[in-house]
Amino acid sequence: MNLLLDNITILPMGNEAKIEKGYIIIEDNLIKEVGEGAAPAGDYGKIIDGTNKVVLPGLINTHTHAAMTLLRGYADDLPLMEWLEKKIWPLEAKLSPEDVYWGTMLAITEMIKSGTTSFTDMYFYMDEVANAVETTGIRGFLARGMVGLGPEHAQAITDSIDLHNKWQGKAEGRITFMLGPHAPYTCPPDYLTKVIALAKELNTSIHIHVSETLTEFQDIKKDYGKTPVQLLADLGLFSHHVIAAHCVHLTDEDIKILADNQVGVAHNPESNMKLASGIAPVDKMLKAGIPVSLGTDGASSNNNLDMLQEMRTCALLQKVNTLDPTVIPAYNALEIATYNGAQALRVGDQIGQIKAGLKADLIILDLQTANMTPNYDVLANIVYAAQASDVETVIIDGKVIMENRIIKTFNEEEVISKAQQIGARLVTSL
Amino acid sequence: MNLLLDNITILPMGNEAKIEKGYIIIEDNLIKEVGEGAAPAGDYGKIIDGTNKVVLPGLINTHTHAAMTLLRGYADDLPLMEWLEKKIWPLEAKLSPEDVYWGTMLAITEMIKSGTTSFTDMYFYMDEVANAVETTGIRGFLARGMVGLGPEHAQAITDSIDLHNKWQGKAEGRITFMLGPHAPYTCPPDYLTKVIALAKELNTSIHIHVSETLTEFQDIKKDYGKTPVQLLADLGLFSHHVIAAHCVHLTDEDIKILADNQVGVAHNPESNMKLASGIAPVDKMLKAGIPVSLGTDGASSNNNLDMLQEMRTCALLQKVNTLDPTVIPAYNALEIATYNGAQALRVGDQIGQIKAGLKADLIILDLQTANMTPNYDVLANIVYAAQASDVETVIIDGKVIMENRIIKTFNEEEVISKAQQIGARLVTSL
Repeated sequence: MNLLLDNITILPMGNEAKIEKGYIIIEDNLIKEVGEGAAPAGDYGKIIDGTNKVVLPGLINTHTHAAMTLLRGYADDLPLMEWLEKKIWPLEAKLSPEDVYWGTMLAITEMIKSGTTSFTDMYFYMDEVANAVETTGIRGFLARGMVGLGPEHAQAITDSIDLHNKWQGKAEGRITFMLGPHAPYTCPPDYLTKVIALAKELNTSIHIHVSETLTEFQDIKKDYGKTPVQLLADLGLFSHHVIAAHCVHLTDEDIKILADNQVGVAHNPESNMKLASGIAPVDKMLKAGIPVSLGTDGASSNNNLDMLQEMRTCALLQKVNTLDPTVIPAYNALEIATYNGAQALRVGDQIGQIKAGLKADLIILDLQTANMTPNYDVLANIVYAAQASDVETVIIDGKVIMENRIIKTFNEEEVISKAQQIGARLVTSL
Repeated sequence: MNLLLDNITILPMGNEAKIEKGYIIIEDNLIKEVGEGAAPAGDYGKIIDGTNKVVLPGLINTHTHAAMTLLRGYADDLPLMEWLEKKIWPLEAKLSPEDVYWGTMLAITEMIKSGTTSFTDMYFYMDEVANAVETTGIRGFLARGMVGLGPEHAQAITDSIDLHNKWQGKAEGRITFMLGPHAPYTCPPDYLTKVIALAKELNTSIHIHVSETLTEFQDIKKDYGKTPVQLLADLGLFSHHVIAAHCVHLTDEDIKILADNQVGVAHNPESNMKLASGIAPVDKMLKAGIPVSLGTDGASSNNNLDMLQEMRTCALLQKVNTLDPTVIPAYNALEIATYNGAQALRVGDQIGQIKAGLKADLIILDLQTANMTPNYDVLANIVYAAQASDVETVIIDGKVIMENRIIKTFNEEEVISKAQQIGARLVTSL
């Protein structure tokens, strides 16, 4: 089946110029043609009129823990260790596989409704996460969190192999499995060496937390005499494709290592602010040529999964941190949330731009709202003024997943209701 | 006429405890009764069922330039002086009184749709701003911007007197006029002395920008040998009620002066971030006992007027700036955006809380959305997870201004269409 988006403003990204009024033809799951002016005559299965609307690549969330939506608002404004040990971990211990399914469904609902078409997840009960990706139609880059300390270390490896064998490329190619060693402070060197060997064997990517807090940075330095980035580099982790979440505390040498190895960085400004972890040197990393992308982190430290807000915060925070208002201009902010997401995940040949031959992951925003008026610069409006509710239609892998804010592939009300029930049960069970 | 909000969660603010399920009776423009449990039997003109909803005091925006919505997205990511001199001022010079009317109408539309019930404005053609306040039903604290340098200095004083005489207390008491000397660097001491005398004569408040940028701070120090706050204090400005916008660059002595004089501070975190002005010491100011409130500033440096986002940014920015996640917890963030707004404007006996005898300025949020689920802590969800589109109903001065996201007092589509036309004219006229 083919689909035509007609009379629409197009932001292709990837340094391609804006098309003020044009069309996009989608065939099956691919973008077949992008053009200016009137669409060629044809027999289209479905036509979406784009008058007073803009289409852009879907937002790519490169670091989250989706099912942590179930912990949203359960514990806030606490010191980090108290938050984790007394609140988050005891509640997480109560989660069943079915809970993780519904928590992920809740996250995907929120992500679709705010324009995210791909997410990169690290959690547990990942079979259920994959099920949710399959059901909803979103694109998922999934990893089972692996902790090298404690009793689960061997199980995590077995599970990761099984998940990879079962799910890699499934859901019409929308599922990619990665390995998810949690962090250098929870995965000692010998464990990371095993993970690297396994990544080589399975030919898969690695998703890891790196240098999130100053404590981590200092502890690793004390234990190993090097920074977390240097430690990982020396272990050979970066000879493989890695997406490194956070990267808040970095030396200039660390930045050089990340750039030389083209490590994908997932920047999480709102989580870093809320947990008071610090401000990542995004401007420096970009100038060094690192593919810096954007993540929301889990909803328990954000507390939403709204990538439009995250993109805006990313730009604003870098400006005030560098005391330079020209840093991360609107175009770059949107690039970080789209094109760079694909580059950081090394799937730039598949998603992240509106370009013939790429997969049709697109979002359409309504420009007829008070907060998007006037429309001098649609790019600036998207980055600095747009709200999640301006996202009208979401297309993933060529399929209309949401149209006029109605989700087509599953029942949104059922998801909210299930998540409320789980929340009520969790909080009374403690 | 009276109005009943029934079966609703109530956040009264002002250190009053949350009511999990209660009712509010509104008579004319006042809150008559607030209670827990079932509402007393009665003959209510209108009943709003609050099942799965929360009601809180309307958000109070204590610093903006409403009609600058017409400049939204026209110039971004530029150095401050280039932005002002080459972009903002030339476009502002093209604005007619009618433009300011429609620009303010656009701002009010956006504010109502994101839960703001009062705004504090400094701009020009303020007759038109007052007209827009009267038409829409919002509450406005208005000041004609006064610049002491240049040809307009005397006119600004005459206008301010006329506006005060014409509008003070009008629109059923929803309009308050203030004096708006722009800033210490645009209003020399002799001019400020005249403004202070006039404020005394008219018994009115003063709205002024103070210590927004480091340049301002350094220039004033060089010219007068004291900080902007010390200069204003020595001139006697603070013997009067003042709302001081920004206050980014402050010494400990400045903070003591602001606290001793109970100067209302309007903190504008997103504008300060976007223009790279710096991070105001909000945590310190609050600890010193200053009534710190929240503003969006104009839409040309934000670029939206969404107080929910502003409140969230305020909390997140202070946490990362102090490297302490316990700073500005959710309750304080919401207090800054509601109760403190009323305190900073010295109208705490009229608005800012849900309390019998106060004016009925209330907003109702829907809790049945993905981003507000689960609901462990409604306060944390409002501060950290809510979106403008969760604001379902807005009541100002006892009148339902928006219900189920439909504005009742004016035609939203007409406002958007007019603003688009003005934007198109402005940009081609340059």
